[in-house]
Amino acid sequence: MEPMMSTVRIDLNSDLGESLGTWELGNDEAMLDIVTSANVACGFHAGDSLTLRRTCAQAAERGVVVGAQVSYRDLAGFGRRFIDMDADELTADVIYQIGALEALCRVSGARVEYVKPHGALYNAVVLHEEQAAAVVAAVVAVDPALPVMGLPGSAFLRLAAEVGLRTVAEAFADRAYTPEGHLVPRRQPGAVLHDPEVVAARMVRLATDGVITAVDGTELEVRADSICTHGDTPGAVHMAAALRAALTEAGVEIAPFTR
Amino acid sequence: MEPMMSTVRIDLNSDLGESLGTWELGNDEAMLDIVTSANVACGFHAGDSLTLRRTCAQAAERGVVVGAQVSYRDLAGFGRRFIDMDADELTADVIYQIGALEALCRVSGARVEYVKPHGALYNAVVLHEEQAAAVVAAVVAVDPALPVMGLPGSAFLRLAAEVGLRTVAEAFADRAYTPEGHLVPRRQPGAVLHDPEVVAARMVRLATDGVITAVDGTELEVRADSICTHGDTPGAVHMAAALRAALTEAGVEIAPFTR
Amino acid sequence: MEPMMSTVRIDLNSDLGESLGTWELGNDEAMLDIVTSANVACGFHAGDSLTLRRTCAQAAERGVVVGAQVSYRDLAGFGRRFIDMDADELTADVIYQIGALEALCRVSGARVEYVKPHGALYNAVVLHEEQAAAVVAAVVAVDPALPVMGLPGSAFLRLAAEVGLRTVAEAFADRAYTPEGHLVPRRQPGAVLHDPEVVAARMVRLATDGVITAVDGTELEVRADSICTHGDTPGAVHMAAALRAALTEAGVEIAPFTR
Amino acid sequence: MEPMMSTVRIDLNSDLGESLGTWELGNDEAMLDIVTSANVACGFHAGDSLTLRRTCAQAAERGVVVGAQVSYRDLAGFGRRFIDMDADELTADVIYQIGALEALCRVSGARVEYVKPHGALYNAVVLHEEQAAAVVAAVVAVDPALPVMGLPGSAFLRLAAEVGLRTVAEAFADRAYTPEGHLVPRRQPGAVLHDPEVVAARMVRLATDGVITAVDGTELEVRADSICTHGDTPGAVHMAAALRAALTEAGVEIAPFTR
Repeated sequence: MEPMMSTVRIDLNSDLGESLGTWELGNDEAMLDIVTSANVACGFHAGDSLTLRRTCAQAAERGVVVGAQVSYRDLAGFGRRFIDMDADELTADVIYQIGALEALCRVSGARVEYVKPHGALYNAVVLHEEQAAAVVAAVVAVDPALPVMGLPGSAFLRLAAEVGLRTVAEAFADRAYTPEGHLVPRRQPGAVLHDPEVVAARMVRLATDGVITAVDGTELEVRADSICTHGDTPGAVHMAAALRAALTEAGVEIAPFTR
Repeated sequence: MEPMMSTVRIDLNSDLGESLGTWELGNDEAMLDIVTSANVACGFHAGDSLTLRRTCAQAAERGVVVGAQVSYRDLAGFGRRFIDMDADELTADVIYQIGALEALCRVSGARVEYVKPHGALYNAVVLHEEQAAAVVAAVVAVDPALPVMGLPGSAFLRLAAEVGLRTVAEAFADRAYTPEGHLVPRRQPGAVLHDPEVVAARMVRLATDGVITAVDGTELEVRADSICTHGDTPGAVHMAAALRAALTEAGVEIAPFTR
Repeated sequence: MEPMMSTVRIDLNSDLGESLGTWELGNDEAMLDIVTSANVACGFHAGDSLTLRRTCAQAAERGVVVGAQVSYRDLAGFGRRFIDMDADELTADVIYQIGALEALCRVSGARVEYVKPHGALYNAVVLHEEQAAAVVAAVVAVDPALPVMGLPGSAFLRLAAEVGLRTVAEAFADRAYTPEGHLVPRRQPGAVLHDPEVVAARMVRLATDGVITAVDGTELEVRADSICTHGDTPGAVHMAAALRAALTEAGVEIAPFTR
Repeated sequence: MEPMMSTVRIDLNSDLGESLGTWELGNDEAMLDIVTSANVACGFHAGDSLTLRRTCAQAAERGVVVGAQVSYRDLAGFGRRFIDMDADELTADVIYQIGALEALCRVSGARVEYVKPHGALYNAVVLHEEQAAAVVAAVVAVDPALPVMGLPGSAFLRLAAEVGLRTVAEAFADRAYTPEGHLVPRRQPGAVLHDPEVVAARMVRLATDGVITAVDGTELEVRADSICTHGDTPGAVHMAAALRAALTEAGVEIAPFTR
């Protein structure tokens, strides 16, 4: 008798809703045809209300799951600058953002189904215990059934798990990893991968074997419930489509982590 | 057998949550001990997230009903400058604000139970059909069971009623009225009343007889489900307390319009 | 004896410096190779400080004259929404913006050599006497030797001339005109011209004969010291280059109005 | 023959212009009657343009020297939150702010005569070499004759001196010092002094002997060209007036450091 084969399944996520009025960024509709989860901006680092509403509606039409991509309040810096905020202010800002996006989702037939910090806040909560706890506190206060998405091994996912939140670990499709399993800092050469075939092959191996090769050749075991693929760079849509095709061809089922 | 006397009942509302970080405005806690409905800012004209959260919590502790005081995005102008926005942008901005405050309410044991435009938006929707419709559309989209508060006779309340929203008409305790039932513009002498006894007497008459005396002596019939009393001027708390005492002494029951 | 030939000369201007951090808009360097005057944003409708500094430096390298493109404070609306501001606030905001850009210019080897309102403020000061006067007051206060650029026939240029400011009248390369000499509103069909050859021919005629043909065929006499050519639309650089080439071929000298 | 007595002289400075539209902070006119240097906000952490213009005019009327109090862009946080900005962005933001205030000064008969970082930026440049250098670079670019005010011993004053900027060292009237000459962090008990007489006595000793007593009794030699006295707390005006009176009575001349 043959053993049952469990199908390998993974989620694809991307940052969307990051235009601001006249300023357009990324190709949301094209990316929404590829990904299964959309990290939608909440107005603090990007996203005017009308853009956010449209992005939520476009996600809903395609059955793409919406997450609140919460950020520091920093339009000029696109949320990419660490801000040393008090924890209670950060918690309140995160609650505010989740609520704002939730309303724009609901009127569009969608819901906020997870929370993912953006940019500098994402990086901060990897190590900054106080800010990580502040974001976790916001999610717990709004809805303890809301999953949080972040970096495996981060303070954020650890603290979230400790209070009973569901955690969604993600890998980055186009980023190189250190032997310790961290991302190679963007300023170092080789930090960002540009070849769609290389990226696709890496992520197929991650999805099927749970392994990713670090810059020095080390084989890393990496937990990934979702793969983050960027939508705002030249060639982004092409890379994301190639990634999706390669995963599908390898027999990996692409589906929202919420399923 | 004597007929049953129906008790006269009215709501008292005030604008709250209008501090911004270091900048404090008004005495929210004192006003919350007096009013029955709190129009809480939503961050667009005033109100950092932490202030809003605290104000919602303080309202919840006292059983004061919270409304979302939605505004144009204009911190520098405190929402007091008309902005000629597209209707769909305004609708999305109002949805965003209601949702943000709703989340801060929910984590504080409160709920957003009505919507009231602030400042220049309040004045605009008296006559500006397109902006009035845009705000109404936002409320309908978020929750058709949410009442809206505004000026009796305004396009806003008319359009809201047409689509089935509950409308809450308000009178202004400290403002003079023209013979046509409009507010005397702030820049004209005598537009704002400063004597707490005069204000209290006018509002008692309004609550009991439905009549307010215009600047030329005309007796106006005014519909008022709620009386707006300002919290951000010197003497505001004193005037609001005097108003409440006078209404109570006259046998008027002070209760949220939601009851 | 041969008659003296006076060379026809005209300025070409464009809106530049309108990126905001991550969000890029237009192709500033390409446009700076074509135009002779750069209306550089001042941070209120667009333009982070670093972008503005770079744009000023790029203009200085090419000998392109820099003007301060002052605006309402409205990033989300890109300065395209009328704001009903008090005159003294508007005057102070315009002074603030001119000064900010002046400093970024000076450190880049340039200077602010004129002032041009942007977007909704540009349109407002055509008819809104109070706001027009407020902008004029700002320029006079900063430096009565600063020219102002605007629409011929506008309240803005009229009031500026009355107090002795030099006025620079501009025509719009890609816009249709009404028989009265106004711009056809953007929402009407045919308001914006897209054919580079048609645009070039119209502007050559304007530069050489002072005439522009209105939508109904009327020949309008239009004063134009400068031609505005937009830099932020697809094909913008191509259209501007074609315009410059056609003017040059027609013997029109293209030079800053300041010369 | 008696020896020549050199008169001891010191500057008094305070943070001013920190209102924002409706939100008022501090009593600028009262403080301007006491201090000799005004650190005027530049709109990034506080200060709408009209407030700034008025404050500059009020300073000019009294002969109070104006400095640009430059900050991170952070209204919600009042500039009190460290922001991890790139150096070139910070430099550009500082240039922008100095220029904006300079224009508002010039139209008011004043000039920006020095630069002082505000809040979190003030604290950052004590140790953060890159940000300190970025602020210094901005001042040098705008005008190498502009003095900078800061904490003695800070990276900021050291780097400024290295490139030839005049440095103005300040002491804090109402703050306790550690034995190392640093300020006791605000969160520690005793960090802020509230007794006007104690404060005045300490500052008289500083001005006349160059000595301040640390929390543990250590006698610290402190260089101070200026004394910072806060204007935005209850009792601030009273404390500043008491300080000025005590210094005058002790024979200390109070005069701008620019004289």
